Amino acid sequence: MAFLEVSILPVGTGSSSISSYIKGAINEIEEEGLKYTITPTSIVIEGDIDTLLEISKKLHKKSLERTNRVVINIQIDDRTDKTVTIDRLVETARM
Amino acid sequence: MAFLEVSILPVGTGSSSISSYIKGAINEIEEEGLKYTITPTSIVIEGDIDTLLEISKKLHKKSLERTNRVVINIQIDDRTDKTVTIDRLVETARM
Amino acid sequence: MAFLEVSILPVGTGSSSISSYIKGAINEIEEEGLKYTITPTSIVIEGDIDTLLEISKKLHKKSLERTNRVVINIQIDDRTDKTVTIDRLVETARM
Amino acid sequence: MAFLEVSILPVGTGSSSISSYIKGAINEIEEEGLKYTITPTSIVIEGDIDTLLEISKKLHKKSLERTNRVVINIQIDDRTDKTVTIDRLVETARM
Repeated sequence: MAFLEVSILPVGTGSSSISSYIKGAINEIEEEGLKYTITPTSIVIEGDIDTLLEISKKLHKKSLERTNRVVINIQIDDRTDKTVTIDRLVETARM
Repeated sequence: MAFLEVSILPVGTGSSSISSYIKGAINEIEEEGLKYTITPTSIVIEGDIDTLLEISKKLHKKSLERTNRVVINIQIDDRTDKTVTIDRLVETARM
Repeated sequence: MAFLEVSILPVGTGSSSISSYIKGAINEIEEEGLKYTITPTSIVIEGDIDTLLEISKKLHKKSLERTNRVVINIQIDDRTDKTVTIDRLVETARM
Repeated sequence: MAFLEVSILPVGTGSSSISSYIKGAINEIEEEGLKYTITPTSIVIEGDIDTLLEISKKLHKKSLERTNRVVINIQIDDRTDKTVTIDRLVETARM
């Protein structure tokens, strides 16, 4: 199970707000039925690497339908020695 | 109010686990009395830029006390046109 | 034309060096005949988004053949209003 | 010796170009006499952690003088077992 943390930054819009881009991304992720969580600075999605990069492509293309330029930051954390879930990761950090 | 998202990656330890580094960071952040939230891939801290970079330095130096090499990823999101809090950001994304 | 900046961090290898992972990535990128440049902290690859995410998947899977856990950081910068190249971007910043 | 990779993204400026922000950052870095290199997606600066976080603060504050919101991405790579320079890192990756 891999985790993909994604933040989407439209460049060149006339607004300081990016929440509509975040909401658009959440709609796409929910349409795919993926497990995710929202953080103050990104969205973290759970899945295998193929699925995660596929949704990244979709979010990227959707953003470019609305702005001339977009910068997307992605962090992928993947391990083969243990199965971990989004909830489990946050719990472990709190123990 | 700025937000700093930080992930700490020790390089060269013999373990795939980094949770002890995350817990160490949380202790430091709590010692400073800062407001934070844990995500599956990072810690997000709220504060002014001086405070946020000061705690980043502390987390960095603490990590290097335990490993020969560390890679720290930081995203700072700061705006002057509106006051936002960690909780408010997550709420807005969910609306 | 999009740009993908990728850094590959194996976790738990017991060695502070990651250069063999970087060299492995460069071999993969060259096999695909993609235009790239090496920076002190990452590799920047030029291409369309489909190609860039495809090579990211390959680099990710190759890394996990050698270590139990890997964290990959990606920044994608893409714009539709102008065609830019790796060389042009660096030149513009220097003018 | 640590390396700090920084990318500066103004949000809501109405322009897809960020080169003036990159040039402004380069002027600040040169004023401090720091060694740096420009990549297609960021600036990489060499120095000790205190100096690197100090210049990050300066770049952050300078950016907010010109836009209501800025997102700054930073990757710090630091090791105590070996002294490495910007040039040496790129050379090693090419060998």
